[in-house]
Amino acid sequence: MAVYTDVSFEELKLFLAAYDLGEPHVFKGIAEGVSNSNYFLQTARGSFILTLYEMRVEAEHLPFYLGLMEHLSQRGVCCPVPVHAQGGRMTGDLNGRPAAILTFLDGVSLRRPQPEHCQLAGRTMAELHAAGADFQQKRANTLGPSGWRKLAQDCAASADTVAPGLRELIEDELAVLEAGWPSHLPAGVIHADLFPDNVLFVADRISGIIDFYFACNDALAYDLAVALNAWCFENDGAFNITNGRALIAGYQAKRPLKREERDALPILCRGAALRFLLTRLYDWVNHNPAALVRPKDPREFLRRLRFHRAVKDAGAYGL
Amino acid sequence: MAVYTDVSFEELKLFLAAYDLGEPHVFKGIAEGVSNSNYFLQTARGSFILTLYEMRVEAEHLPFYLGLMEHLSQRGVCCPVPVHAQGGRMTGDLNGRPAAILTFLDGVSLRRPQPEHCQLAGRTMAELHAAGADFQQKRANTLGPSGWRKLAQDCAASADTVAPGLRELIEDELAVLEAGWPSHLPAGVIHADLFPDNVLFVADRISGIIDFYFACNDALAYDLAVALNAWCFENDGAFNITNGRALIAGYQAKRPLKREERDALPILCRGAALRFLLTRLYDWVNHNPAALVRPKDPREFLRRLRFHRAVKDAGAYGL
Repeated sequence: MAVYTDVSFEELKLFLAAYDLGEPHVFKGIAEGVSNSNYFLQTARGSFILTLYEMRVEAEHLPFYLGLMEHLSQRGVCCPVPVHAQGGRMTGDLNGRPAAILTFLDGVSLRRPQPEHCQLAGRTMAELHAAGADFQQKRANTLGPSGWRKLAQDCAASADTVAPGLRELIEDELAVLEAGWPSHLPAGVIHADLFPDNVLFVADRISGIIDFYFACNDALAYDLAVALNAWCFENDGAFNITNGRALIAGYQAKRPLKREERDALPILCRGAALRFLLTRLYDWVNHNPAALVRPKDPREFLRRLRFHRAVKDAGAYGL
Repeated sequence: MAVYTDVSFEELKLFLAAYDLGEPHVFKGIAEGVSNSNYFLQTARGSFILTLYEMRVEAEHLPFYLGLMEHLSQRGVCCPVPVHAQGGRMTGDLNGRPAAILTFLDGVSLRRPQPEHCQLAGRTMAELHAAGADFQQKRANTLGPSGWRKLAQDCAASADTVAPGLRELIEDELAVLEAGWPSHLPAGVIHADLFPDNVLFVADRISGIIDFYFACNDALAYDLAVALNAWCFENDGAFNITNGRALIAGYQAKRPLKREERDALPILCRGAALRFLLTRLYDWVNHNPAALVRPKDPREFLRRLRFHRAVKDAGAYGL
């Protein structure tokens, strides 16, 4: 949670000259987002987020992310919409970084979502999947199974310092997942990071979905598996089946899962847990103590992965 | 620039139960302030800043700071106003920290203020001094001359690693300032930290003064000396006399300086430069690399101090 790239008011004014947004009234760095620098911007025309894309979001994928948000918004999904500069472009250069202005959405993210919130999140995810069906651009899931082995290799030497036996567990898990990963599930555009952080609520209704910077084309049910990992575990590591049932029910109210998706849910959940275990582990062992961000504890997802390894079928998730 | 104390939405809701502010619509940590954690909060009732006071602002002084803002605001100074909880109190406890909600002010701070901005800043400072004249609470300037020697001692061992000869220069300076520091200048409530960061502008007019957490009772002209240090130096260390002239003229348009204040201006400027040199030096040599804040370079104020040492009279500042 940090602002990596400093932007002065004077630099902002120069950048805004290419937009029809009027005089800036408020401009504050916000402590949000691990990979990008975000500023809250208010002008006579409304409230916006100015994002400077740092390392992790590769500039080449910005047309996909920004185009997707515009596409989804046109189909009724509440998400930030990129503001076009004069001439139509959606990004510019600001202090050496690609930067974009997006509309700001009201809403707060929950830390301890209740079943009714999970149900709404599931339903909104299904709506997002439907709205994304005719989006023309494609982006492979670079943090899907094809990316995990490389991440695991980069962390292998330090893994056991984080948890004894972690290196071997990851190796075992990679072998199982690579052998059994389903390849013919219904696919489309997925959010791929729909944690409670990225779902905004106003008065117990969803006001917006944010942070599409992991969105990609992949199995739709994998998105649900990510959300089961993200919304349905207690702080002590226990799975909350009431939340799980609500999330899945909310999803199925809009799009019933097919038989093969139900069957695949346990392995998809294992994969999703491994994905966040690996990226957190990478950030943990490569953490620069002078960085302005505290890395998240990877062991949280180790506990979740252990839960999924013991699961026999999708009934364990409340399906 | 960081959020030190994490506040979840659920914790916020509990805290807000004591206020009549309605449902929160927006709640975001903002990357502002070195000592406190600040959140931007929007409810049906308006926009606010929620501040959690961390170490440096001692809880015992909060009634002074918050009472002062309320007092100044009632006398026409645009500054944040503390929101009273039901029952009247201005602070509460949030996650183990004293916390307060203040009204949010539109406006952006300038990085490179022009003479017209300096003039407005000077004028607003004089208005602030007038408005504070009948404020009843008192707070001594703990970062005035009586506090400098202790700071200097705490940094002495490391000072020369920051700049060769710095330890001796600080010792010399302390001797000169302690011997010659003026003690009978017109005094009152001063802001004591009126840097461009703390002055908000909308369309080239001042929309607010913020961050009163160094405010205290001291010589009024010392506040002007702080501002001369803060508003009138170029990045390369050169004094910008056009800015200095505008700042002083703005101040004098509302409150002409007395003869003894003009005479004292050079030593007050030296003292103000030493104050920021010392606090920055302290933060620099005691910096914890795992902290979420990057310390500011103390050498910036070493250059300013060197300028003031060569000054013969207040004419050098544009007076």
